[in-house]
Amino acid sequence: MRVDIGNTLAATATPGVSRATLDRLDDRVAAAHERIRRGRDEREHGYAALALPDDADPAAVRAATDGFDPAAVLVVGIGGSALGASTLAAALPAPDDAPPVHALDNVDPAHAERLLDDLPLDETVVNVVSRSGTTAETLANFLVVRDAMRSAGVDWTERTLVTTGDAGPLRRLADRHDLPTLRVPDGVPGRFSVLSPVGTAAAALRGADVEALLAGARSAAAGLSGSLFETPGYAYGAVAHALDRRGATSNAMVPYAEALEPFAEWFAQLWAESLGKDGLGQTPLRALGATDQHSQLQLYRAGRRDKLVTLVRPAERDAGLPVPDVPEDVRYLDGASLGDLLDAEFRATEASLAAAGRPSVRVELDRLDARSVGELLYGLEAACVLVGELADVETFTQPAVEWGKTAARGLLGADGEAEREAAAAVAAKERLVVDGD
Amino acid sequence: MRVDIGNTLAATATPGVSRATLDRLDDRVAAAHERIRRGRDEREHGYAALALPDDADPAAVRAATDGFDPAAVLVVGIGGSALGASTLAAALPAPDDAPPVHALDNVDPAHAERLLDDLPLDETVVNVVSRSGTTAETLANFLVVRDAMRSAGVDWTERTLVTTGDAGPLRRLADRHDLPTLRVPDGVPGRFSVLSPVGTAAAALRGADVEALLAGARSAAAGLSGSLFETPGYAYGAVAHALDRRGATSNAMVPYAEALEPFAEWFAQLWAESLGKDGLGQTPLRALGATDQHSQLQLYRAGRRDKLVTLVRPAERDAGLPVPDVPEDVRYLDGASLGDLLDAEFRATEASLAAAGRPSVRVELDRLDARSVGELLYGLEAACVLVGELADVETFTQPAVEWGKTAARGLLGADGEAEREAAAAVAAKERLVVDGD
Repeated sequence: MRVDIGNTLAATATPGVSRATLDRLDDRVAAAHERIRRGRDEREHGYAALALPDDADPAAVRAATDGFDPAAVLVVGIGGSALGASTLAAALPAPDDAPPVHALDNVDPAHAERLLDDLPLDETVVNVVSRSGTTAETLANFLVVRDAMRSAGVDWTERTLVTTGDAGPLRRLADRHDLPTLRVPDGVPGRFSVLSPVGTAAAALRGADVEALLAGARSAAAGLSGSLFETPGYAYGAVAHALDRRGATSNAMVPYAEALEPFAEWFAQLWAESLGKDGLGQTPLRALGATDQHSQLQLYRAGRRDKLVTLVRPAERDAGLPVPDVPEDVRYLDGASLGDLLDAEFRATEASLAAAGRPSVRVELDRLDARSVGELLYGLEAACVLVGELADVETFTQPAVEWGKTAARGLLGADGEAEREAAAAVAAKERLVVDGD
Repeated sequence: MRVDIGNTLAATATPGVSRATLDRLDDRVAAAHERIRRGRDEREHGYAALALPDDADPAAVRAATDGFDPAAVLVVGIGGSALGASTLAAALPAPDDAPPVHALDNVDPAHAERLLDDLPLDETVVNVVSRSGTTAETLANFLVVRDAMRSAGVDWTERTLVTTGDAGPLRRLADRHDLPTLRVPDGVPGRFSVLSPVGTAAAALRGADVEALLAGARSAAAGLSGSLFETPGYAYGAVAHALDRRGATSNAMVPYAEALEPFAEWFAQLWAESLGKDGLGQTPLRALGATDQHSQLQLYRAGRRDKLVTLVRPAERDAGLPVPDVPEDVRYLDGASLGDLLDAEFRATEASLAAAGRPSVRVELDRLDARSVGELLYGLEAACVLVGELADVETFTQPAVEWGKTAARGLLGADGEAEREAAAAVAAKERLVVDGD
C-alpha cells in the first residue's frame, strides 16, 4: 500500500498541512507508536486487534467451513459483526462459482421475508455472529431464519455456523446441537474484527485466500514504525488528524472499484464509532468513484472547506476491452476501455480537487487481491488507532449507544429500572408536527 | 407526509432553533414560496421540476414500456440518470414476480463484466438514460452492453429503451433503429428528474403504480403554501437551513426501511449537488436504520455538534410474526416481531439523540406505498429548492464538476485547448508518497 499525501500540503490545499507540521507531528507519532506497540504486544483491549494477523488462526476457519459447499451464505449479524464479512466477500477474489454472501443486518420484516423467500435454504449456510449472543437484532433475525429453515424442512443444525464468545445463548445453542463454532477473539471490538473469524468465515466459504489476506496484514503490521514518513497507515492517520484539527471535519472515503463499496462502509464504522466521542471525531462520508462524481463532487469541490477526500484505487487492474463502435460525438473514447476511462476519471478528479485547493489523499494498492486488501484494512485500523492516540480519545469503546439500547428494551417491556426510565423519556418527546394531509 | 421538528427546538437541542426563529423564518419562506411558485408556473429552468407531477405523462411511459415483459431491467445511466430509477425500483411496491432493476452506473470493468455474465441478456430490457447522449460513462457502458448482447445473439434493438433529449448520439441511434424512446423533460436537472420518465420507466417495467406515485406528488404540490407551519417539505427545508447556519453542517438521512436505502443516496445527490456551492451547503450523510445504530450512532450522539439527523419511517407497516423460541436471556423480545423491534429502535434512537441534546427531525409516511413515496420525494425536492432560496445559491447548476470532465477527456487524448491544459495540470501533481513496501 502506498499513501500519497502530496495534495494535503498547505502549498496545494486549504485546509492543508505544512512540512513543518508534519515534522512536528512525527514526534507525536513516535510516542503514539510506542503506546500502540506496547498495547499490541500485551494484547490490551482494543490494541489486541493489531495483533490479529499473528493471532488469527486461519486453519480453525478452514476447519469450521470446509465441510460446507453452499450455494449461498447468509451472515446474520449487525455492525462490526457483518461489515467485515461483507467487505471481504466483495473485495477478495474468489472462484467464478463462489456463493454470494448476503447479510441480514437489519430488522426490517419486509426485507427479511423477501431475502428468505429468495434464498435456497437447503443450500444456504447461515453464519450467525454475535460476541455476547444477546444482540437483539441478530438474535431475533437468527430465530426467524431458523424457523424458516424448519418450515422449509431443512435441518438447520446441518447448515449453521456460529461465531460467538465463550458464553451466552448462541454458545449454549452451539454446544447443545454440536454446531461448528468459531470464537470471537478477546479484546477485539467488533469494528476491528475483520481479520478474525468474524470477518473471514464468509470469505473462506467463498473459497477466498484468507491466508494471503492475513499475510498482507502481517506485512503491514511488520512495517509499523515510529515515523509517519515510513508507515503508510500512520501517514494517513496523521494527516487525517491534522486536517481534522484544521477544519476538515469530514472525511470522504471514495474507492474507485465497485468491489470496495462495502469497504467504504466498513471504514465509516471504524472511523465514526472509534473517534466520534467527547465532541470530537471526523465524520466519515461513504462514496464511490466514479459514480459519485455525478452526485457528491460538486459539494466536495465547491462546498465548505471542511472535507478531506480519500481516493483509493488499485494501481493495476484488468482494464477490459476497448469500448466498441464509438460515435464521433465522443471520439476521445476511441480505443479506450472502461478501465482507461475509470483511471482517467480518478486522476482528473484528484487534480480537480487540487485545482480548487481541496485536500485529498491517494491510497494505492498494488492490485485488488487478498494480500493488498489485508494491507489496506490493517493500515486503516492502524491509522484509526493512531488518530485516537493523537486526539486522546477512548478509541475502543462506544458508550453513547447504550442509552438507546436500554430505551428500546424498555419500549418492548423489559422491566428493569433503567429500562423503565428510558422508556418514559421516549414517551416525553417534544412535538411540533407539520402535516401534509 | 408528516414532519415533526419538535426535536430541533432550542429547548431540546444544541444547535437548535427557537420558536421566534421559526416565526422570523416563516416570512422568508413566504417570499421564497412566491419565487418558487412563479418559477414553477412559468417552467423556469429547475423550478420546472416542481411541475412534474402535472407535466409528466405516465401514459407515454406505459406506452414505451408495455411491450416488454422482462426478467430483468438494466438501467444504464449515472448520477441523476440512475438514482431516481434505483430509488423507485426499491421503494415502490411491485408484484412478487417483478423483474429486478440493476443499474450500471460506474465504469468498473470487472463489475460490468460480472453483471453482464449474470444477466439473462435475452430476457433483459436495457434502459439507457442520458439527456445529452454524450455522458462518457453512460455511452461507454451502453456500447459495451450492446456489444455483449450482439455477442450473445440477442437482437439489442428489440430490448433497448432510450431515454434522452432531442439531439445527440442516443437520439440518432433511436431514430435509426426505431427504438422506443422517452424524452428527458426540458428544464429539469437530472437530480430532480425522478418523477419524469428518467425515474419512472424502470418502475413501470416492474409493474409499479406510477400513477399513484404522481398522485402523491401532485397532492404535495397542491399543498405547497407560503408557511412552513403548513407545508411539511418547507418545514423540513427551513429547519435544515436554520440548523446549518447554526452549525449543523451535516445532515444524516436515516430511513428505517431497507426499501428506502437507495432513497438516502438519491437525497444525498439532491442535497449535495444543489446546495454545495460558494463555500456553502450542508453535507448529506447516507445511513440506514436500525443497522447504522451499530456504526454511526456513537458519532451522531457524542461527536461534534455539527449534525442534523433525519429519521424517516412509515407510520404503518406489516410487522411480521412474533420472533419464535425466544431464549430467557432476552425475554423482553417475547411476543415482539421484527417490526416491533425496528419501531422500538426508531423511537429509542430518536429519544437518545434528544437526551444528548442533538437535533433530529422525524419524517413520517403513512405507509410504504407509491402515493406516500411520491409525497416524500416531492416534499424533499421542495425542501431543497427552498433551502437554495434561503441560502441564495444557484440550486439548479453544478459548475464545479466541469473541470474534472474536461481533464478526463484530455487524459484520454481529446485535443481541445481546455482539455490539453487540464491534462497538463493533472500531470503536475504534487507528490509525497509513503510506501509500505
